Amino acid sequence: MSEFDLIRRHLTGLGAARADVCVDIGDDCALLRVPDAHELAVSIDTLVAGVHFFPDCDPDALGHKSLAVGLSDLAAVGAEPAWATLALTLPGADEAWLAAFAGGLGRLALAHGLRLVGGDTTRGPLCISVQVHGFVPAGAALRRGGASPGDLICVSGSLGDAGLALRQHLRGGPTDAAARARLERPTPRVALGLALRGVASAAIDISDGLVADLGHLLAQPGLGARVDLARLPLSAAVAGAIESDAHWDLPLASGDDYELCFTLPPARVDRLAAIAVRAGCALTPIGEITRDGGLRCILPDGGDWHPRRTGFDHFADAP
Amino acid sequence: MSEFDLIRRHLTGLGAARADVCVDIGDDCALLRVPDAHELAVSIDTLVAGVHFFPDCDPDALGHKSLAVGLSDLAAVGAEPAWATLALTLPGADEAWLAAFAGGLGRLALAHGLRLVGGDTTRGPLCISVQVHGFVPAGAALRRGGASPGDLICVSGSLGDAGLALRQHLRGGPTDAAARARLERPTPRVALGLALRGVASAAIDISDGLVADLGHLLAQPGLGARVDLARLPLSAAVAGAIESDAHWDLPLASGDDYELCFTLPPARVDRLAAIAVRAGCALTPIGEITRDGGLRCILPDGGDWHPRRTGFDHFADAP
Repeated sequence: MSEFDLIRRHLTGLGAARADVCVDIGDDCALLRVPDAHELAVSIDTLVAGVHFFPDCDPDALGHKSLAVGLSDLAAVGAEPAWATLALTLPGADEAWLAAFAGGLGRLALAHGLRLVGGDTTRGPLCISVQVHGFVPAGAALRRGGASPGDLICVSGSLGDAGLALRQHLRGGPTDAAARARLERPTPRVALGLALRGVASAAIDISDGLVADLGHLLAQPGLGARVDLARLPLSAAVAGAIESDAHWDLPLASGDDYELCFTLPPARVDRLAAIAVRAGCALTPIGEITRDGGLRCILPDGGDWHPRRTGFDHFADAP
Repeated sequence: MSEFDLIRRHLTGLGAARADVCVDIGDDCALLRVPDAHELAVSIDTLVAGVHFFPDCDPDALGHKSLAVGLSDLAAVGAEPAWATLALTLPGADEAWLAAFAGGLGRLALAHGLRLVGGDTTRGPLCISVQVHGFVPAGAALRRGGASPGDLICVSGSLGDAGLALRQHLRGGPTDAAARARLERPTPRVALGLALRGVASAAIDISDGLVADLGHLLAQPGLGARVDLARLPLSAAVAGAIESDAHWDLPLASGDDYELCFTLPPARVDRLAAIAVRAGCALTPIGEITRDGGLRCILPDGGDWHPRRTGFDHFADAP
C-alpha cells in the first residue's frame, strides 16, 4: 500500500453519514446541499507545529483540536455543524500517527453529526487546516456587532485553563491534568451557540483571550464595557495562579479558551439558567456593556486592572 | 501597523463583490447564500514551498496558482465559481510579498467573479491552502463515473508544458517561456466545465498527469481506454522534447497541466467545435473508451507505449 493509499484509508469516511452530502471525498469536488432558507457559515483555521502545538503532541488530541477550533467558530455564530474539509501537510505517512489523528478528529465529528467531505494531503512541515461548514436560518446568525449599552456580558465555562497548562508545560514543571485537557481537547460550545440564537445580542468565541475578543464586540461607535474580575469563572488552579502571581493575564489574555462571550439584553437575563442547562455548561455574567469608556477591568478591591497585552496574536506569538 | 494588520489589509476585500455574501471576512464565520435548487461544490488544495513550488517563486504567480488549482476542480465538475477561503502560513509578514501574492490571487478571483470570504494567517513554513466554493444546478454536476464504451476521450488545451518547464528548471538550463507560464500561471478551464454540463458523460481535471487522471474515469467495472499518442495536443516545445527523448512521460505523467479530460457520447461529437469556441480553448479527441482492456497508449507507429509511472503523486513526489 502506498503512503497515499494509507492516508486515504485513514481519512476517508470520518464522521457522520449525512443525506445532504451528494458526493463525498473522491471526486474533484464534494457536492453538498444547503437547506432552503438557510445561510451557509464557513470558517477555516490552521494549526502549525511549533506554533499552535508542540511537535510531539498526542495526535489523537491534535485531531480533536483541529476540528474543535472550527466548531467553536460555528458555535459563535449559532450555526449547526454539517461538514468539514481537511488540508493536511505531513512530513511522512506514519500509520500510528494517522490512525490516532483520524480517531480524534472522527470522534468529535461524529459527536456533532458532522461529515469530513474533502481534503488534500501533501508532504511538508506538519500543518493542519480545517474548514468547517454549518447552517443557520437566514438572518438568525449571532454576530459580533449587536451589543447595546446596558447589556449583560456573559461567558461560558471557565477562563484561563488552557493558558495555565501552556505556561506549566513551558516552565517544565508539573501540569494540572484538568487544565491540560482544556488546552489539548477544548470543548466547542456548539449547543450553547444554537441556544443563544434569538436571545444573545452579540457573540464571539474566546480564542485569543477575553480582552481581545470582547474588544471585537465593542468595535462599534459609542460602546464600552465594565468587567468585574471578581466575577470571572475560574477553576481552582487558575484562581490559585492569579493569587500567587497577583496577575490577571491568564483569564484575560491567554489563548485557546474556546468559550463563548456573549451579550444579553437585561430583559432576557431570566433565560440564562435554562440555557445553561440546555447547553450543558456554566454561564456567568461578568459585567456589562457601557456607553463609551473603552474596556474597564475592575479588580476585586475596586481598582482598575490594566491588561499588559491585549491578547494572543496567532501570527506573532509562538508558545 | 502590526504584522497582523498588514496581512489583514492585503488579504481583505479580494475579488468580486457578491450579493450572496451576507457576512464577509471579519466575523467568526463568513455567512453565505447558495441559490435554491443548486448544489454547493467545494474543493481544498494545498501548495507547500519546496514541494509544489520553489521557495523563491514569484509571489504574484503563486497567488494566481493557489486559486487556479481550486478553480480547475470546480471546472471539472462544471461548477460556477463563487467564493474562496485562504489558509496562509508564512514565515514573516513581508509587505512586498504579500502585496504581490494578493495581487495575483485577487486578479484571478475578479476574473471569475469570485470573492475571498475568509481566511486564517499563521506563522510557520510557507504553506498555502485555498478552498473554493461553486454552484451547480442540482444533479447537473459533471462526474468521474459516467463514461461508457464507445465514448470519445477529449482533452482541452495542450499537455506536458508545465512538466517541461519544471524539468528545464531542475536541469538549470534555459526555460521555454510559454511552458513556464503554463507551470506558474495555469488557466483553469472554468468556461469549458460550464459548457460541458449535459454534454460530457464524465470529466476530470488533469493535475497529476493524463494517465493517472484518465485512470480515475476508468475506475468502473468493464471500462478501458485506447489513447492514440499521435493525437495528443502538444506544444512545439513538448513535441520536440518527446522526439529528442523518445519518451512520452511529459504529456502522460507530469503534473500541473490543469486541462480537462472528458468523455463524449459519439452522438454529441458535432457539438465539440461550438463548445471549443464558447470555452476559448482547443478541444482534441485523443482516443475512446473501450470495453475492458485497461488503458492502452498507442504509439504513432502502432506499437504500445507503457508509461513508466502512473502520474505525479503530490504526497510522494517533490519537484
